[in-house]
Amino acid sequence: MTGATRTSKAYRVRTELDDLLAGLDVGDPVPAERELAARFDVARETVRQALHELLVEGRIERRGRGTVVSRPKLVQPLSLRSYTEGAERMGRVPGRQLISWDDVRADEESARALGIRRGAKVMRLERVLLADGERIGLESTYLAVSRFGWLRTTFDPGTSLYSALRESGVTFGAALERIETALPSPREALLLGTTTAMPVLLLNRRTVDQHDEPIELVRALYRGDRVAFEALLVDR
Amino acid sequence: MTGATRTSKAYRVRTELDDLLAGLDVGDPVPAERELAARFDVARETVRQALHELLVEGRIERRGRGTVVSRPKLVQPLSLRSYTEGAERMGRVPGRQLISWDDVRADEESARALGIRRGAKVMRLERVLLADGERIGLESTYLAVSRFGWLRTTFDPGTSLYSALRESGVTFGAALERIETALPSPREALLLGTTTAMPVLLLNRRTVDQHDEPIELVRALYRGDRVAFEALLVDR
Repeated sequence: MTGATRTSKAYRVRTELDDLLAGLDVGDPVPAERELAARFDVARETVRQALHELLVEGRIERRGRGTVVSRPKLVQPLSLRSYTEGAERMGRVPGRQLISWDDVRADEESARALGIRRGAKVMRLERVLLADGERIGLESTYLAVSRFGWLRTTFDPGTSLYSALRESGVTFGAALERIETALPSPREALLLGTTTAMPVLLLNRRTVDQHDEPIELVRALYRGDRVAFEALLVDR
Repeated sequence: MTGATRTSKAYRVRTELDDLLAGLDVGDPVPAERELAARFDVARETVRQALHELLVEGRIERRGRGTVVSRPKLVQPLSLRSYTEGAERMGRVPGRQLISWDDVRADEESARALGIRRGAKVMRLERVLLADGERIGLESTYLAVSRFGWLRTTFDPGTSLYSALRESGVTFGAALERIETALPSPREALLLGTTTAMPVLLLNRRTVDQHDEPIELVRALYRGDRVAFEALLVDR
């Protein structure tokens, strides 16, 4: 079989599957691989590849031993607002689950980014982000202990950090955000409830206040099958 | 072996590899999997997983039968500027290679997005994006023939579409961009010079002019190991 033939077969199967999914509702079962291969008159491997694409895109998901049609992705606006506001805007119930909360020493790069001395204490807050109870992200936030150590005594890590910071008088000024794709490490996949073969969106953010003073560094992984980001770009 | 042990071994190996790469220059060879497994005293599978992560992140790349340290990713600003400007800003030579340029009929969704009748002609321009001759993206642009059919006679698809549109008097107003991660289809992987197991960044964009009239729909895939996006977020 030539590459061109394989490619056009894959394309046809994908189109047929898209049409099939368009006629189903969220939660409806997707026919089994074998049944689809027979229906489309192609090898099971061709169907498997197309189903894997749909799984990665979050159009379908495994449930028990079967496969069902997924809910649409959670679309998060790229903005200075918190995860909480983004999730609520989409009618989902946001939640956070604390994984670890400890102090580390700033290496050269994070010291520069946070405006502190190398070796100074940095609070690291690692939380799983939930939407309607489902794990969709893993967020590590780094804050200088010298400025934000008080969070230890007052902050509930099950709630929005941005709200707590705003209530304490911090005004967010700007954030520089870098967006990449990655595969999760075994530990990250475990915490996200996914596998090391499923791509995630990796966001690295540095946030400063209205006086350009550093607030936080954030490294966040979002499940690629559950989350999309959206940005409104205007000419400047 | 428990899950926790496996996880912390993976973490240690990844940290050791990060340190090793930090001491190497772009293009330097990375030691072979077997050698690294012996050096770190772990199973080859543990090293393989860590190397695969680094490959997906674009830190290392295959060259011939070996593996070498990669150049940094091309960082594209999320903006209304063209790919050309983003690449040049990073000192890379941008290029475009035409794959297909044909007319299709607007389905309901694209008709609504482009402000035309369903079934009306849409010009589809599919190009591979190059940086210093290397394939890094695959871009499909959809334009209403009724408004932009004149491109057929004057536009060189090896150049910037945005420049051609601006020169013709079009003023870009805003774009709504959706950012996701996906795995490429076999055809897309072939055109991108990658594999169906390597995650890509998927951007869907709708651009309007200063009068809010639709200009284009774009579906672009960027190799996740070669490209990152960056956005400056300000409070509004």
